[in-house]
Amino acid sequence: MKKSLGPKTLVYPTPVFVVGTYDQQGAPNMMTVSWGGVCCSSPPCVAVSLREATYSYGNLVSRKAFTVNIPSQKYFKEADYMGMVSGRDENKCEALSLTVVNSTVVDAPYIQEFPVVLECQVIQTIKIGGHTQFIGEIKDVKIEDSCLGPEGFPDVEKVAPFMFSPGDRHYYAVRQCLGKAFEVGRGK
Amino acid sequence: MKKSLGPKTLVYPTPVFVVGTYDQQGAPNMMTVSWGGVCCSSPPCVAVSLREATYSYGNLVSRKAFTVNIPSQKYFKEADYMGMVSGRDENKCEALSLTVVNSTVVDAPYIQEFPVVLECQVIQTIKIGGHTQFIGEIKDVKIEDSCLGPEGFPDVEKVAPFMFSPGDRHYYAVRQCLGKAFEVGRGK
Repeated sequence: MKKSLGPKTLVYPTPVFVVGTYDQQGAPNMMTVSWGGVCCSSPPCVAVSLREATYSYGNLVSRKAFTVNIPSQKYFKEADYMGMVSGRDENKCEALSLTVVNSTVVDAPYIQEFPVVLECQVIQTIKIGGHTQFIGEIKDVKIEDSCLGPEGFPDVEKVAPFMFSPGDRHYYAVRQCLGKAFEVGRGK
Repeated sequence: MKKSLGPKTLVYPTPVFVVGTYDQQGAPNMMTVSWGGVCCSSPPCVAVSLREATYSYGNLVSRKAFTVNIPSQKYFKEADYMGMVSGRDENKCEALSLTVVNSTVVDAPYIQEFPVVLECQVIQTIKIGGHTQFIGEIKDVKIEDSCLGPEGFPDVEKVAPFMFSPGDRHYYAVRQCLGKAFEVGRGK
């Protein structure tokens, strides 16, 4: 029996993306968001949504570039921190002893310690409501070579991503392969 | 050491959403997508991206409504099937013995057996490239009452969602709580 919970953003899984930008003085900022996802294959694009009040919003509008840093599970506390503290108040990477790398592909910084980073150029900005969506064309993906699988793609168990659960607001680990897509459903 | 993989949609986690629509004759269709995510809190909105060639694309353009059905892990084969077969060729829910329910909130059908469903009205349509993004305002969320947690929100371990891994194209289970968001990062 289904129960109505009203109009809420109760979606599972939502990702944990740490969005890297430069401010107008060139200082790096990192902000954790869970409102986002892939939105196009060709060109490859990922979208992130931010409120105008955030420090990263202004950075995105002026720099038109960002990175999406995917934290592994061992960095879930750092990711949580970067979703609570504003870049107006401090340099979060310094506070967390994380290493900032200047992307040579887009005008944005990324985090060395996180296993996967997407380097993105903003190609569309869409005002929705309280959030504005930035669509970034993925110009490159970089991965720690220790997290590569045998076919040259990220190995999910090594990347060890995690999800955010809206509603109860907890983080959950991604674990255990269920099966191969575009294959397990054959013959159903 | 990071290795460059080029411009690809290698994002972790991406969700497994089964998008429900009616065609012009009123027949229900379900299509699995992983390009999408929450894009706004107020109003609550979720985005899904589809290629114009899909049957669901035409349904979304004409009906301007859809549901997002979140399958639990035990339905991962059914979800995979619904990402491979076109609604032009068959009624996928009939083929899979899944029960279609007509939403009374929006002009779209949903799947009774899946634990969570979002009922959405299209408020913006954005052409990106090969994919078009449909932004749906979430008018209601319905959940199986057996999947509710003590605070009245979905219990992730009972909903048992799973993710799609681009690149190696496998499904992975979401398991094991890591900690509470907006809390574990304090004092880092």
